[in-house]
This record gives sequence, structure tokens and C-alpha cells, in this order.
Amino acid sequence: MEIGPLLLCLAVMFILARFGARVISKYGVPGLIGEIIVGIVVANLSFGDWSFLDMMDIVIGDDLTDSSDNYEAIYLFAELGVIFLLFTVGLETKVNDLLSVGKAAMLVAVLGVLFPFVLGYGVIIAMGGDIGTQEHAMFMGAAMVATSVGITARVIKDMKLIDTHESRIIIGAAVIDDILGMIVLAIVVGMADTGEISISNIASITIMAVVFVLVMLAVAKWVCPRIHEYFATREKKYIARTGKTPMRSNKLIIAIIVCFFFSWFADNIGLAAIIGAFLGGMLLADYAWEWGLEEKIESITTLFISFFFLNVGMQVDLGECANITVIGMALLFIVLAVITKYYGCGLGARLGDKSLDAQSRKIIGIGMIPRGEVGIIVASYGLASGAMTNDLYAIVIIMAVATTIIAPPLLSKAFRKKYPEEYTITPADKM
Amino acid sequence: MEIGPLLLCLAVMFILARFGARVISKYGVPGLIGEIIVGIVVANLSFGDWSFLDMMDIVIGDDLTDSSDNYEAIYLFAELGVIFLLFTVGLETKVNDLLSVGKAAMLVAVLGVLFPFVLGYGVIIAMGGDIGTQEHAMFMGAAMVATSVGITARVIKDMKLIDTHESRIIIGAAVIDDILGMIVLAIVVGMADTGEISISNIASITIMAVVFVLVMLAVAKWVCPRIHEYFATREKKYIARTGKTPMRSNKLIIAIIVCFFFSWFADNIGLAAIIGAFLGGMLLADYAWEWGLEEKIESITTLFISFFFLNVGMQVDLGECANITVIGMALLFIVLAVITKYYGCGLGARLGDKSLDAQSRKIIGIGMIPRGEVGIIVASYGLASGAMTNDLYAIVIIMAVATTIIAPPLLSKAFRKKYPEEYTITPADKM
Repeated sequence: MEIGPLLLCLAVMFILARFGARVISKYGVPGLIGEIIVGIVVANLSFGDWSFLDMMDIVIGDDLTDSSDNYEAIYLFAELGVIFLLFTVGLETKVNDLLSVGKAAMLVAVLGVLFPFVLGYGVIIAMGGDIGTQEHAMFMGAAMVATSVGITARVIKDMKLIDTHESRIIIGAAVIDDILGMIVLAIVVGMADTGEISISNIASITIMAVVFVLVMLAVAKWVCPRIHEYFATREKKYIARTGKTPMRSNKLIIAIIVCFFFSWFADNIGLAAIIGAFLGGMLLADYAWEWGLEEKIESITTLFISFFFLNVGMQVDLGECANITVIGMALLFIVLAVITKYYGCGLGARLGDKSLDAQSRKIIGIGMIPRGEVGIIVASYGLASGAMTNDLYAIVIIMAVATTIIAPPLLSKAFRKKYPEEYTITPADKM
Repeated sequence: MEIGPLLLCLAVMFILARFGARVISKYGVPGLIGEIIVGIVVANLSFGDWSFLDMMDIVIGDDLTDSSDNYEAIYLFAELGVIFLLFTVGLETKVNDLLSVGKAAMLVAVLGVLFPFVLGYGVIIAMGGDIGTQEHAMFMGAAMVATSVGITARVIKDMKLIDTHESRIIIGAAVIDDILGMIVLAIVVGMADTGEISISNIASITIMAVVFVLVMLAVAKWVCPRIHEYFATREKKYIARTGKTPMRSNKLIIAIIVCFFFSWFADNIGLAAIIGAFLGGMLLADYAWEWGLEEKIESITTLFISFFFLNVGMQVDLGECANITVIGMALLFIVLAVITKYYGCGLGARLGDKSLDAQSRKIIGIGMIPRGEVGIIVASYGLASGAMTNDLYAIVIIMAVATTIIAPPLLSKAFRKKYPEEYTITPADKM
């Protein structure tokens, strides 16, 4: 691996991504959309026979193809970016807050997964022909289910409304439906591999996911406070005995180890690494502020995260999908994605928490609209395994981008109606 | 690239490195020495036919050989670690402070490069036989010249004495001798490639290095303040016109771009990337505090830097060098490394700044003793190009480790004698 050309490549990509984020956030759209669009442009722009990437290859004196070391480094940065982003979201999610909205969040998540999956699946099957295969339908349904915790949380955080009842339900439900999304993914991948639905496979992945989540919640609620108390007591005793403050370990190091370990663990049991990162962050949420972790992890996330959204865009091959069928289908799936989440989650909120009024249910329905990482991960798996076409992949990306653009202004409007005094405008340029 | 096994691999390596750092810093030795030792142990430990790395391979379900993706990621982290470390040192080095000690630092650097090179070269030649070749002698001489800016700066920083006159001379001289070390490296590499010393090659690399440094100093001194002033004026006008504070860009992003760009640039003109990182950091030094850059970059450095020292240790092959010749030669070169810097730099200080008393000259001589990255980079080049043997590589690493262990206690003692009131003990566990 040559470090020199890689550094230039990272610098150029980073400048382009941040430029996109900056420009688009002037129009009130989350910066990450600008980064995705830059990714699409970078991968698809060409002048005559020369693509933008060919020219980059000449400038950096090395290549940027999928198999090159430079691309591997961008991919690694992208993966670490989304892992640290979800870890940050975990750091901001206290287990007791999450449990307090448990029933409502669960119902919002389940119905918000069921509606999009069934409609996404049904529409593809109804199309028939080359498109309407069982495999395509399963993958498209799966790609529609998961709300993006990252995007949702960032929008809520930018509006400084993370402490409202609705926000907690949205975050809780988004976490649960990411987990459900992972389970659905494991099922459809298993099905694509074996050609049949294996009940034992579905059961084992479901049980593992549920056990993992419950164990992590229990550890966060009962074990972590004990460990913290033990060390605090030991420190007090040490000070009382010696009169000196003991050498403190750098808490960022503990956080990084927790993040990497649980990300690996989740990946290893067949879930996505980001679920582990989120739950690992949650273990430390009660001490994140005291240890200054959020700022520190945010600096690390800043280095990496732009590459994630850039890479999402770079996977879109416009040449292969710029036709009327794809555009028509993309529009259809955007509408499906919006209404299935809005009504599915709204219904879940109604059934799960009687105290919510119509406006709160509306907030929750809108808040669950943005799709993101998990849907894109599902589509990437589908593309890699041949169970999805380039066209369908592009449709998922377009759907994810569109829902992410549509939701924030609607969400802020709905929140403003509910909490007119508390709402403050903050620039959404941080991501 | 599989992200799962990589995350486990990074987590395990990180835990081991930090454990080593933690244990050794209890004895007052800089943590990085613990990380290097852990690297040596990790690469050399074996139980019967099973090496530690073989067992790691089984645990992480993937391999960790030099060519594997996992090792590439560790290598990337290592490189980024030392780049961000030098960038941080740059952020703490204000150009006016550096220029104020220019003459003394220059003389300290030049004599501190000349003495070790001549003696290192001479001793190898004097040995004759298989060892005493021209190539070995050139590379060993080159590997002895550069003081580790990283290690020196960290030791001084931990003692909170970065603002003293002696510290500035040490840092300035360490920077200059890193640059001289790079020039020497470029010369010996060119010589190893062509088999002869090319005057035009030496001249071109020297001129490029000197021009780069001078231009960067000029930019830091005259251009950066203008740019900063321009934006500050524009912001004030905007506030006066609209009554609103404009959207501020995230300064960390600017810092990362500057760091990557100048690291690439330095690498591209034949210097080491770390020189560019250092000079890039210096461009922002006047605003680092205002922008909160040091803390942010330090978080990023924390993620990466342990892998650098770990990797330094992992390159040592104990099996091939645990014999009496190597041990004897290592002891000889440790003594040479210490006395050539101590007397060379001491003499430079005496000639360069008449106001320095004997104790200050002693501080400077001791402060320049630790070798590090650059010496190890020279040795790595030599090893890779076949101009150095495994034994000589191991001797350079042992010399670097030993000088780094020897210098800090001597330096803190010398500083304490000079500044009895100001000296405060702080734990040296941060690195």
C-alpha cells in the first residue's frame, strides 16, 4: 500500500464530499444528501471517453477501481464512519429512556416494518415478467423496511428536540426496526443462498438478535451502573488513603474498544456491525457526558462519515438505470416508502400509546420515513449476490435519498406545530 | 475486505497495545515503549509450533500476514497515526516561536546530524567483513541522525514545559533534523538504487526540501494571518448587515484536509509524509486553540497512534537477531546514539546561542537523544531494498527504543534542575 497517493485521494474525495454537503445544506437539506449526490456524480461523470475517475487516477498516479488499495481504504473509512455514527447515536440513547417508550416503540417498529415489506413485495410480484421474481420481491421488500436511525437521529438532534416523548419513540422504534431489518435481511440472504425459506434459519437468526438486544439492554441497565460504582468507590478509597488522585485511564480508549468489539460481535452472529455499535454506545450512554465522549467520538466520526455517504452514491450506475422504467418505478417506490411508514407507524403509535394525540402520531409517522444505511446494505447484498439488478439497486438508493430529503422539512414543520416555543433553528450542516 | 474480522483484529491489537502502554507508564516510561514491546512480543511469541499470530488468525477467522487485508488496515492506521501525531505537534508549534530560535536550532540540528552520521558510518566501515559494506554503513549512519519530534515533543508536553526557550530550540532542531534525516535518506536510497552518489540527485532533493520548508514558513508567517483576517472581516460585515451569525464551517474538516494535502505533497516531492503533516499543522497553529483543534485531532490520533508503535515492534524478528553479535552491536550503537547527539547538539547550542548556560545546553543535548519514526523509516527502506540486514534493522529498533527509554528521565531531571518551581509531575500515560 502506497500512503502518498492514498492521502491525496482521501483529501480530494473529502473536499468534494464536504463541498456537496455545504452547498446542499444552504437549501436546508441535510448535508449527507449532498455527499451522496457527489458520490453519484464522481462515479458517473465523464467527458467523452474520459470518466472523472480515470482523470482522478492520472492525478493521483494510482487507480481507484473497486479492487484497488485506494478504494479499499475509502471503503474501510466508509464502514468505520457508519459504525462510529451509530456508536454516537448509542451514546445519546439512555437505556431507561428507551425502555420507558418500549411498548409504543415496539408497535411502531413492527407495523412500520410489516407495511413496507408487504407492499414492496406485492408491487414487485404484481409487475410480473423479468422484474417480478420472488427473489427481487423479497429483496425490495427487505430494502424498504428499515428507517435510518442515523438520519432520523441527526435531524432530531439538529432541532434540539431529542428529549421529547415523540423523539424517544421514534429513536426507539428506529433502533428496533433496524434490528428487524437485519433479521429480514438475514432471512432473504439465506433464502437467496439456498433457494428456499428455512424455518430453522429464520428462527436461529431471530433468536440470536433478540437475545443479543435483550442482554445488552440488561447489561446497560443493571451491570454497567455497578461497574461504574465499583470504580468510583475504589477511586474514593484511593484518594482517602493516599491523598492523591489516581492516574485516570483515557475513556476514549475504552469507548473505541467497546465500539469495535460489539460491532464485530454483531457482525459475527449475523447481524449488521452497526447494531452492535449502537448497543455498545448505549452501554456507555449514562457516562458519555461526564467522560466527554460525544465530542471525542464526533471528531473521529467527522473524519470517516463523509466517505460512507460518498460511497453510497458511488455505487449508483446512472448509465445503466437512466431510463423511463427505472424513473417510473423509483417514483412509485418513493410514494410507497412514504405512505407505508407514515400509516404503518401512525397505526402502531395509536395502538401502542393511548396518550398520543393526532399531532404526535403524525410526528412519529413522518419521523420514521427516512431510509438509509440498512436499506442500502440490503440492496448491496442483493446486488453482490445477483439477487437484485443494477436498476433495482438504483431505485433503492433513489428512494433512500428522496425519503431523506422529504422527511426533514415535514418533520420540522410537524414538530414546530406541536412545540412552538421550544423549536429553534440550527444549521443542519454538521453531517 | 471483510469488516467483521478486521474489527476484532483492531480491537484485540488495540487492547494489547494499550495494556502495554498502561503497564510501562506505571514505571515512568513513556507508554509508546510499552506499545513497541507489545508489538515485538506479538510478532515473536510462539508456543511450540504455534505462533501468537497463528492463534490470532484462528480466533479472528482470517489471517494477519503481511499481505492480508487486515494487516493492510493496521498499516494504514499506523501511517495515519504518525501523520496525525506530527500534525498535532505542528498545531502546537507557532511559526514566530520557531523562527525566534532559528539560528540556534539550525546549528543544533546540523551538528546533531553530522556527529551521529559520521560515527555511525565510520564504526560500520571499521568493522569490515560482511557487515562493513559501504551500503550498510550509509544506511546505519542515516538511521542514527533524526531525533524523534513525536517522542521529544510528547515528553516536553507531558512536563508542561513547551514554552521554555530550551524546548523551542529542541523542537525547532528536531524538526530541522527530521528534514535533514529525510534528505540523507533520499541520498542513501538514491545511492542504493544506482550504486553511486549522484550530485544532481542530492542537489535536487535538498533544494526541494529547503524550498518547501521555507515556503511553508513564509505562508504560515505572512499568508495565513491575511486569510484569517479576510474571513474575520467578512464575518463581521455579514453580522453588521444581517444581524445574524453566519453558518460556520467545521474547522476540523479544514484541518483534516490541510493535514492530508500537505502530507501527500511532502511524500510526492520525495520527503516523508510526516514532514508535510508537521508543516501543515504549523500553518494552523495560531488558530488551533481558538478552533479547539488540538483536542479534536488528539481524539483522532488516539484511535490511530497505538498501531504505529505496535507496528514498529512487529517488524522486529527476534529469532533472527537474538545472538551475541547483535546484542553487542546494539549496545555499542545505543552508546554512540546517546553521546553523538549529546555532544553534537550541545556544541551546536554553544555556537548558536551564547545566552545559553551549561545547564540549558545539557537540556538540549539530552532532549535531542530520542530517535524514532525517521530512523525506523530509514531502516525500513534499507530492509525493503536489501541494503540492510535483519540484524541491522533490529539494532536500529533497539537503539530507538533504548534512547527513548533513557532520555525522558534524564530530561526531566535536567529540566527540574533548571526550572525547580515550574516543574510539575504529570502522568506520562497519554501516549
